[in-house]
Amino acid sequence: MPTPIDPTSTGFLLAENRNMPMHVGGLQLFQKPEGAGRDHVREMYRSMLEAEQISPLFLKHPYRSVRTGGQLVWKPDEQFDIEHHVRHNALPKPGRVRELLELCSRLHSTRLAWERPLWEAHLIEGLRDGRVAMYTKTHHALLDGVSAMRLLAGTLSTDPDERDMPPPWGVLPPRRTRSGDSGGGGLSEVPMAALRSAMGITAEAAGMPSALVKTIRKGLRNETSALSLHAPRTIFNQDITGSRRFAAQDWPIERLRAIGKATGTTINDVVMAMCSGAVRTYLLELGALPDRPLVAMVPVGLNAKQSQIASAEGGNAVGAVMVQLATDLDDPARRLGAIHKSMKDGKEALSSMTPVQILAMSAIGQAPAILTPMLRMQGIVRPPYNLIISNVPGPRSTHYWNGARLLGTYPLSIPINGMALNITCTSYDGNMAFGLTGCRRTVPHLQRLLTYLDQEVAALERAAGL
Amino acid sequence: MPTPIDPTSTGFLLAENRNMPMHVGGLQLFQKPEGAGRDHVREMYRSMLEAEQISPLFLKHPYRSVRTGGQLVWKPDEQFDIEHHVRHNALPKPGRVRELLELCSRLHSTRLAWERPLWEAHLIEGLRDGRVAMYTKTHHALLDGVSAMRLLAGTLSTDPDERDMPPPWGVLPPRRTRSGDSGGGGLSEVPMAALRSAMGITAEAAGMPSALVKTIRKGLRNETSALSLHAPRTIFNQDITGSRRFAAQDWPIERLRAIGKATGTTINDVVMAMCSGAVRTYLLELGALPDRPLVAMVPVGLNAKQSQIASAEGGNAVGAVMVQLATDLDDPARRLGAIHKSMKDGKEALSSMTPVQILAMSAIGQAPAILTPMLRMQGIVRPPYNLIISNVPGPRSTHYWNGARLLGTYPLSIPINGMALNITCTSYDGNMAFGLTGCRRTVPHLQRLLTYLDQEVAALERAAGL
Repeated sequence: MPTPIDPTSTGFLLAENRNMPMHVGGLQLFQKPEGAGRDHVREMYRSMLEAEQISPLFLKHPYRSVRTGGQLVWKPDEQFDIEHHVRHNALPKPGRVRELLELCSRLHSTRLAWERPLWEAHLIEGLRDGRVAMYTKTHHALLDGVSAMRLLAGTLSTDPDERDMPPPWGVLPPRRTRSGDSGGGGLSEVPMAALRSAMGITAEAAGMPSALVKTIRKGLRNETSALSLHAPRTIFNQDITGSRRFAAQDWPIERLRAIGKATGTTINDVVMAMCSGAVRTYLLELGALPDRPLVAMVPVGLNAKQSQIASAEGGNAVGAVMVQLATDLDDPARRLGAIHKSMKDGKEALSSMTPVQILAMSAIGQAPAILTPMLRMQGIVRPPYNLIISNVPGPRSTHYWNGARLLGTYPLSIPINGMALNITCTSYDGNMAFGLTGCRRTVPHLQRLLTYLDQEVAALERAAGL
Repeated sequence: MPTPIDPTSTGFLLAENRNMPMHVGGLQLFQKPEGAGRDHVREMYRSMLEAEQISPLFLKHPYRSVRTGGQLVWKPDEQFDIEHHVRHNALPKPGRVRELLELCSRLHSTRLAWERPLWEAHLIEGLRDGRVAMYTKTHHALLDGVSAMRLLAGTLSTDPDERDMPPPWGVLPPRRTRSGDSGGGGLSEVPMAALRSAMGITAEAAGMPSALVKTIRKGLRNETSALSLHAPRTIFNQDITGSRRFAAQDWPIERLRAIGKATGTTINDVVMAMCSGAVRTYLLELGALPDRPLVAMVPVGLNAKQSQIASAEGGNAVGAVMVQLATDLDDPARRLGAIHKSMKDGKEALSSMTPVQILAMSAIGQAPAILTPMLRMQGIVRPPYNLIISNVPGPRSTHYWNGARLLGTYPLSIPINGMALNITCTSYDGNMAFGLTGCRRTVPHLQRLLTYLDQEVAALERAAGL
């Protein structure tokens, strides 16, 4: 039975091309349970193949024909072939994180075929320290990054002794997420309804009602920050190719919190300052740092009072702030201060916006891939920001999958034309993980950013007198 | 400096879509040289990355813009990134051939991006017996399968002690092929000029001059074999998806030769009979064997006298014969006999054709991907054959690459819409290797064909009284 595809998902499907695959990814690192045998990974793989049930979300594929009137619809895959979707991989020796990131980069570079359900999961063995990795890939038309993480979290448990747990695709809705009872800070803080509202606006935007476009332009120009329209040209703001490079690493949240405390800034400000310093050093090395500071588009959560929407749900809305990254400043402390102020100004501007304006801004955060081209078509040639930096909260407590401890989780996102680098951060179990996804060609030596991020934490600590 | 792309290559580029990637592949198995250290594969990979020079063939990519008048041209890749093209892979445990074939299937399923030179080479470690594999992938617009093998052979040596040998992409033309002096039976038996002539005709065909189309239709109907127009419908003759399954194995040529001797048939007849028997069993198991026998399109070499062309070159031309596979017969001996007769009839029909007719037939062999759709457009709804079986001669003697002995080489070919299974055989060092490439969805459980091929050799031996 074909079912209709909502306009947002249709937008993501139609926006896709070979240079811009529209899937989000996740990399998880697991520690084998104690007493795991030699064949542990193989058994893990077997159990992933043998999920008793598959969620309908993971069984449908987009389909278009004369019979559907040329419209894209979801259709169940009648020849569903789980071995096509769930794969077993290995790393070449020496099996360092470097080899793992290289494999993820490659897996993230290929498009999902529309003739099958739009997801893949790759179990990866061969890390020399014995950890096991899983890379998952899901089309943005099925899930955004946040709900993907939520889905994953829902299949994990805080109980190391729990067994017979299904993989993410084996969980049928409306089963309650298991992590719901794991205590604060989980993904449940961002309710799906609010996300869907934001996505709903995007859907309209994809259809380009001119009133909405005007709202966005007004929002960008007058309300949020006039500065945002003066983002300088950088190497990130070019057309991209289809090949990706992915780099990831995490740092203890305690270190970021200490910097924040000593300087009167937030953890999120420190994350932005780390990105700013790293991007500054990276562009300096390439001789490509513009004189004017870079602008980042940062999705932020707003509480119900601020947003005046979704209050019936008692939840939050998501807005987007344009943040001046102060990449023109050499001193880490001054840069952090400037970012803190810019973020505060942006949030205040956002809170004075009308609900529709906020939703319009949110739409940018949720669907840069659709909106950026749209802005261009509206005569805004350059996007009003240079890169997207998201910071998505994750679960605070230790989680397990069938006894395997989740050590870390790293997001892979979607670079698009004009926006070749995406930085997404997510917190888990006391660490802040940075996932950097870039076009392999437009953003050369992406992995150097990890070194610069690390240098920046240390520089900020010194500046804060720690 | 952009250079023009010849019409055949343009045809292959334009015929390509997500369901029909137009690249040929090769899988090579190597034995590590004696005394190779733990890091041997890594060093092998390093040396592949550090090729001192790259052949221009491997540096150009297709490009089209307003400046080129919308025409596809070759353009040097100014940001050539060898690490994108040459990759290091590993197999998950237990590292059997099964895991290797699974990886090759997956690697063969993804399209080459036009924004980069159209090739990839994957060094693969982790086979439990210590062998090292290499999978290479080259766009048909750069190379056909035969010249790809020729190129590979050209980079190998018969001397196990030779070192500092470049990889295939590191060999500059017009360097003489090293295997040229390795004694008879090499790929040099099929001169490039003859292939190019055949390809030239294809080029015209892609432009569809009606005279040529008439010749082909006439050839198919009257000259070659009227039977060929009566190929039954099978599961192979459907539209395909982009995902591939690859299976490969080899058998000692001595076994095939003994069967041929005892039955008065050729090694090639025995190869056909093996394929016929295996496909028969496979379709029977699926309950999908048609009553009428399947027809295979088999490219064959013709000597200069037969073909009356390319004689100035003293070389051979390539023609295509429609062979009745006698899949309606249960008895292996009778099937082999029928195939022998059909092959002989087909070759005789071919030798009575005019040179242009032969070239037209050759074009089918070289470019089914272009010609099959063309035949459809001309009102020939079903292709006049069910599958393509090629048997390409390879080097007879043992070859080495930097001391690593080449144990076997297996071709991966191009399934197309209406032709979901391709069988390509190639001989090397006393073995006949079968490479079966199919659409993963249209040809389920492709790997079973290996078992049936093996059973068929044994059945033919019994039938021949061996």
